[in-house]
Amino acid sequence: MVRAGSMPPVPLRCRASPERTNLAGVQHILLVLSGKGGVGKSTLSTELALALRNAGKRVGILDVDLCGPSIPRMLRVQDSAVHQCDSGWVPVFVGQDKAIALMSIGFLLERPDDAVVWRGPKKNALIKQFVTDVAWGDLDFLIVDTPPGTSDEHISTVEALRPHQLLGAILVTTPQAVSVGDVRRELTFCRKAGLQILGIVENMSGFVCPHCSVSSPDLTVQPGGCCGLFLVECTNIFSKGGGEELAKHAGVPFLGCVPLDPQLSQSLEEGRDFIQEFPKSSAFPALTHIAQQILDTSQRSS
Amino acid sequence: MVRAGSMPPVPLRCRASPERTNLAGVQHILLVLSGKGGVGKSTLSTELALALRNAGKRVGILDVDLCGPSIPRMLRVQDSAVHQCDSGWVPVFVGQDKAIALMSIGFLLERPDDAVVWRGPKKNALIKQFVTDVAWGDLDFLIVDTPPGTSDEHISTVEALRPHQLLGAILVTTPQAVSVGDVRRELTFCRKAGLQILGIVENMSGFVCPHCSVSSPDLTVQPGGCCGLFLVECTNIFSKGGGEELAKHAGVPFLGCVPLDPQLSQSLEEGRDFIQEFPKSSAFPALTHIAQQILDTSQRSS
Repeated sequence: MVRAGSMPPVPLRCRASPERTNLAGVQHILLVLSGKGGVGKSTLSTELALALRNAGKRVGILDVDLCGPSIPRMLRVQDSAVHQCDSGWVPVFVGQDKAIALMSIGFLLERPDDAVVWRGPKKNALIKQFVTDVAWGDLDFLIVDTPPGTSDEHISTVEALRPHQLLGAILVTTPQAVSVGDVRRELTFCRKAGLQILGIVENMSGFVCPHCSVSSPDLTVQPGGCCGLFLVECTNIFSKGGGEELAKHAGVPFLGCVPLDPQLSQSLEEGRDFIQEFPKSSAFPALTHIAQQILDTSQRSS
Repeated sequence: MVRAGSMPPVPLRCRASPERTNLAGVQHILLVLSGKGGVGKSTLSTELALALRNAGKRVGILDVDLCGPSIPRMLRVQDSAVHQCDSGWVPVFVGQDKAIALMSIGFLLERPDDAVVWRGPKKNALIKQFVTDVAWGDLDFLIVDTPPGTSDEHISTVEALRPHQLLGAILVTTPQAVSVGDVRRELTFCRKAGLQILGIVENMSGFVCPHCSVSSPDLTVQPGGCCGLFLVECTNIFSKGGGEELAKHAGVPFLGCVPLDPQLSQSLEEGRDFIQEFPKSSAFPALTHIAQQILDTSQRSS
């Protein structure tokens, strides 16, 4: 367990002041936010990175979920270590083509079961180091995955990234009213912090039952379905449409619904590249559609 | 938006030092923890309170999820206000029989969209007030719902409750390996903090498809199913068994699996009493079985 007052063993910085220079080669920085936990921020961050990489872009992920880092596992690099170079910490490069750069506290823990029991000031110091001291190199996109809430990590991340190429924030919700309520609070946070809202994503929108879609005779194929993105009838495990309604109400773009998809969950469990391996799955068109909208927005802002 | 430095308008304390006395009438205090967000801590806290109330117990809920308070909405008391009495803040009493007492930051916000943008020290101060200044009265159980992680809220809550009748902690996970990894970190936290682990609950374990269970001829009714608690075949949306495996590995009790259940989600959305209204649903036996184990443990410890 890492306690407030003791840091995990991290590589030391080699240069006195790499501030500003380490993010100079990054074209666009995106924050992935949600007031609520477990709505799929890390899933979206990971799949968005894979989809943008698949579109030929150079992508980095900065995981500032210090108490629950899950991206190293989702990308199957949880046993990797962070090294150092002249410009600071070298992120972990993912996949055979090494096209995704990842930095996470997960690489700095001695054992994967270590709990990061840190109060705010310690977390703020590490986030500042993550922003200033990682040698990202040239990237088209840096995706910042955040923990739930609107507290130390969020304030520190926005403050540290504000002088850089901050494109804006993607807000993730699930369809339930409780989750939508949390995202409404996150919208207030973004507005007060002067953070552009790129749009809202509704995750876990309905479930395409593998039994029903194959064998059940009383289900009709519905062109359209949830957001027109998949074709068989969904069971609404939670409910539906909260994200789209919230986007309309708040006057921000709605980027799409991502259905509950066992192939997506399995890919994340096993650290596989969902975008490459499951182009026929129900979540694939939703995720690539979201990535395309981010690409369009980034081109307009360039 | 509530910013660090400004408190929401809260009722003032009326007595100089109600410390220790306000929890004197509480028999057992339970923490509901999980390293990961969105796994169902608030759901379990709410349903456990309803199930214990249904078993004739006097129950309180303390919601220390300061950035994402969801229990007031789940119990349909989100528009209530907190008042004061001689002993401190009066919690909000829920339902026609007023048998559940609830305290949450949700009652202290001017508008439901307000974001609580607080750094650690501010959160710690409010949690201390929640523990010392709420007039709980006589309760059999006080259930403390926590935010995800192992940070300020958790350290402060455990420190403040340690001198009182702390029965132990229930850890909630979903079946995915990523979530199980986060709960493993929470186990480390509990052990280092000297907190008894009452057991692990696996939430969202499989999905009983309402279409399949009614109309699909190729599905057989499987006595047993997930943990023997429901009777029709489940689709494993995420995966299954991670919680039970983790409990075995860690040598702590496994309290049971709660399946994904649209009736449960709907009840929480609409603030209805699931335990009273849906005794035939798939999640009902799982939840009452967990409540029974908590009752058994509390009787052994008395």
